[in-house]
Amino acid sequence: MPQAIDFYFDFSSPYGYLGSERIDALAAKHDCDVVWRPYLMGAVFKQLGTSPLVSQPVKGPYSRHDLMRSARLYGIPFNIPDPFPVNSVAACRAFYWLVDRDAALARQLAQALYRGYFIDNRNLGEAETVIETAAALGIDREALGAALQDGEVKARLRTEVEAALEKGVFGAPFFIHGDEQFWGCDRMDHLDKWLETGGW
Amino acid sequence: MPQAIDFYFDFSSPYGYLGSERIDALAAKHDCDVVWRPYLMGAVFKQLGTSPLVSQPVKGPYSRHDLMRSARLYGIPFNIPDPFPVNSVAACRAFYWLVDRDAALARQLAQALYRGYFIDNRNLGEAETVIETAAALGIDREALGAALQDGEVKARLRTEVEAALEKGVFGAPFFIHGDEQFWGCDRMDHLDKWLETGGW
Repeated sequence: MPQAIDFYFDFSSPYGYLGSERIDALAAKHDCDVVWRPYLMGAVFKQLGTSPLVSQPVKGPYSRHDLMRSARLYGIPFNIPDPFPVNSVAACRAFYWLVDRDAALARQLAQALYRGYFIDNRNLGEAETVIETAAALGIDREALGAALQDGEVKARLRTEVEAALEKGVFGAPFFIHGDEQFWGCDRMDHLDKWLETGGW
Repeated sequence: MPQAIDFYFDFSSPYGYLGSERIDALAAKHDCDVVWRPYLMGAVFKQLGTSPLVSQPVKGPYSRHDLMRSARLYGIPFNIPDPFPVNSVAACRAFYWLVDRDAALARQLAQALYRGYFIDNRNLGEAETVIETAAALGIDREALGAALQDGEVKARLRTEVEAALEKGVFGAPFFIHGDEQFWGCDRMDHLDKWLETGGW
């Protein structure tokens, strides 16, 4: 089995969401696993002195149009939520708390959080939304509520974010396969071809 | 015949160069004309407070790797020149001086300038390089030399750059077809599909 694809994303990133709806099928074609790795783009913006694309003048309106157009092209249900963007710390903490206990369920939760935000406009920035979404998957509401404030869980997320930045991750979606990095939905076709050919 | 594609680029943009090597074939598939419109990304950087991708920390090294990998994938000869990036004012002025006299020759010149810079490492930032490249196409060396300092030619370029910014152009390559904008080599597949289907 080929090396897994590391899939980095921010729960608040709409391009990350579009990537999340396509990466598993892409990887499956090549019998390849995907490791979902949510992180906080805020750390990148701070490091690089940048800001979310959708909040930038000129590029912001373009990217909103491009997101809608891309979603229609790929047949992915999508709306630009309100509020947007939001802080996804609670979503990330929930994911990392869960992933050591039940990796498959953590991935289900990630997908449910993304869809809740970008399809059903559920405010991902609020801990209550994260807890409700988890509870609908049978995850213990009180245990998760406590985990979101737990020092070890907080530290775990910080470690994951730092590790992502150390690897040079700076966008969402951002894919790493072996030594190769692929930034953006725009590079999923290159990643696909890379897996098919073994590189060029 | 369908509406022409406006193709905006900066002569110093490597992604613009990669786009320039692919746009004519893409347009020809749809029996569509391409209007080449060089402009100055410096005006965008000034407007938006940004900087060239390749000069940015973290994103810079990634994009250099991505450029080489993309060029190999598309089979386009490509090197990252030195010096890079450069100011492409002389190249732009030469183009706009020529385009009213001989549009086909202006396009030939644009391609020759791009290839000289990104294949043969000829310093596009120097007026002498622009003049030499033009002379090799039979363009009058002295007339061009004078045009590069001509007030009307300078004003023409300023008008073109302002018009591009007013249309919301902010990258290279950047394509406009009707009311639709497509930013980057990454969106040439969407542009292709748009021309094929009439939009979605």
